[in-house]
Amino acid sequence: MRRPMNFNPGPATLPLPALERARDELLDFAGSGMSVMEHSHRGKDYEAVHEEALSRLRALLAVPADTEIMFLQGGASMQFALVPMSFLPPGGSADYVVTGAWTSKAFAEALAWGKIVAARVNAAASTREPDGSYRRVARPDEAKLDPQAAYVHWATNETIHGLQYLEHPRFGAAPQVCDMSSDFLWRAVDVSPFDLIYAGAQKNIGPSGVTVVVVKKAFLERGRRDLPSILQYRAHAEARSLLNTPPTFGIYLVRNVLAWIDDVGGLGAIEQRNRAKAATLYAAIDAHPGFYRAPVEHASRSVMNVVFHLPSEALEKRFVEEARREAMVGLKGHRSVGGIRVSLYNAVEPSWCDELARFMKDFAKAAG
Amino acid sequence: MRRPMNFNPGPATLPLPALERARDELLDFAGSGMSVMEHSHRGKDYEAVHEEALSRLRALLAVPADTEIMFLQGGASMQFALVPMSFLPPGGSADYVVTGAWTSKAFAEALAWGKIVAARVNAAASTREPDGSYRRVARPDEAKLDPQAAYVHWATNETIHGLQYLEHPRFGAAPQVCDMSSDFLWRAVDVSPFDLIYAGAQKNIGPSGVTVVVVKKAFLERGRRDLPSILQYRAHAEARSLLNTPPTFGIYLVRNVLAWIDDVGGLGAIEQRNRAKAATLYAAIDAHPGFYRAPVEHASRSVMNVVFHLPSEALEKRFVEEARREAMVGLKGHRSVGGIRVSLYNAVEPSWCDELARFMKDFAKAAG
Repeated sequence: MRRPMNFNPGPATLPLPALERARDELLDFAGSGMSVMEHSHRGKDYEAVHEEALSRLRALLAVPADTEIMFLQGGASMQFALVPMSFLPPGGSADYVVTGAWTSKAFAEALAWGKIVAARVNAAASTREPDGSYRRVARPDEAKLDPQAAYVHWATNETIHGLQYLEHPRFGAAPQVCDMSSDFLWRAVDVSPFDLIYAGAQKNIGPSGVTVVVVKKAFLERGRRDLPSILQYRAHAEARSLLNTPPTFGIYLVRNVLAWIDDVGGLGAIEQRNRAKAATLYAAIDAHPGFYRAPVEHASRSVMNVVFHLPSEALEKRFVEEARREAMVGLKGHRSVGGIRVSLYNAVEPSWCDELARFMKDFAKAAG
Repeated sequence: MRRPMNFNPGPATLPLPALERARDELLDFAGSGMSVMEHSHRGKDYEAVHEEALSRLRALLAVPADTEIMFLQGGASMQFALVPMSFLPPGGSADYVVTGAWTSKAFAEALAWGKIVAARVNAAASTREPDGSYRRVARPDEAKLDPQAAYVHWATNETIHGLQYLEHPRFGAAPQVCDMSSDFLWRAVDVSPFDLIYAGAQKNIGPSGVTVVVVKKAFLERGRRDLPSILQYRAHAEARSLLNTPPTFGIYLVRNVLAWIDDVGGLGAIEQRNRAKAATLYAAIDAHPGFYRAPVEHASRSVMNVVFHLPSEALEKRFVEEARREAMVGLKGHRSVGGIRVSLYNAVEPSWCDELARFMKDFAKAAG
């Protein structure tokens, strides 16, 4: 079948060249006659891929030598638990900035751990509206930060609610821990203000099952040392993400995606593509203000996830169905908020956005 | 390149039909025009694979309705931590049966957690020899079991040391928690005596990055309820392993491997294949008692991992090199014990074992 225009929120569409490469060498990786999945994670063929993925990521983000990069398992959700386990000291405190569904979950998981170790976990700021929606990111000046907090946790982008910090703020003086799952690598980012960044791979980086963690060595050293080693970032960093058997095929595919980013011109070119895609979609929304309604404040509109509503749920359903018939998939909003969500991760082609904008215009004309 | 005879200890060789299927539909899964990696984990196409993998596994092992099957992330090593976190009550105790490198690691991780919650973790039995080696599995009558233990943890097979319980014992009356990573699905197994079984996929079931957990509902209910939800088996079971984004491609490949097991005649046929392969290898060792030396006692010899030594390290090195030239790979023993290790997981072809036995005969004749 013809490749559809895939706007899935994650697992998301992947760059075709990265997938074609995987297909072409699925049974014969590096001239070995075996699949990469069948190689030992301690053998030189796999290790070359592992190191290439790490070093490409380091180069793309200009990650300094005082900062480790890791590939872990369990998704961002596992990080919701591992971060407080390592960095929330018994009797201490941590601040959470809540701007949507994902930071709410991270906060809830930290709260559970906080109770176990008698530590405070504060919602230092929340942009939740009385009706339960989130329409904007938070400002540092509205956050009630604990000067003693072991860290401040926030997220650069909220996939479900479609809002994003386009400029990265700093929440106080405590170490900044940031969930970048849904906008990691959408552009070049200065990682130096962050003590720990994590990102599930299944948006911009690769398939589900791999989580990238970027963490300052000095922060690592503060991590709790008496946990089982598999739960300690330090142990994974020391073992270069080979503490136990890593998800080798997933990391291999991350390597393919990172190579593709370089092939299309690096993160500068990726940013231009992404900004243009989002501009196309938001223009299509704003051109029909009586028909399409974007709930997010202008300054917080996400470049990665464009969310909007139609005048009725029935129309939203028809929109999704008719778009599917034109080979545009993955447009249904998250079940918790409804509406339409268009995810514009790196591998989404600009031409798909042009098609969708054209479809939106036609649909509004026909139904509006 | 020609497909080598791959005796890797894990990640291990996979059934060729399972890989060919993955290659053929890598860019077009279920007629969707997209890779399975690009599908939503909540979409019907992926969900069909997810449910098929769960139900095939349930059918193969005749898992009763009172028992849950889950696909998690993090490998067996993550289970080393999650088991005590959920099931070792503060102030309580758990028993560990140590028979090699992997049960030693599981014990060490549980010990770390035990210190945090002021619980005792006992090495109820250990078959470690004074020289550090392990040559046999443990007998229940030699285990000093705590009648109050929350569970007893043991492993059916030790990959590094090459020993296996060919009959499954029961260690006391406490719930039995078992690491079956390296011999899961080598034959039909009665799962009913076990309260919790876990297995990393990368031996007999699929690629690395997926862990299978089989757990009785009644045991699940005993699990600690105040942990972050991502660390609770209960939460994963309730969400049918879709609590967060699962490693979709890995589970898809597990499905392919399970389908292959049925295609070749089910676990009865797999057991016959595996017993024949191991018999061929052990016969080759025993035919040259002055040259090949198997350190494991006869009754504990593993059907999955055949380990042996040659008269010198120099000869072992030559053995590995010459075998590689004849397209036999993955034969080097684990760095902690040296020697030769031949892993005979389900996808290893019987003809490869015949070839290796022939090579062993020739090598002994030439060098012996």
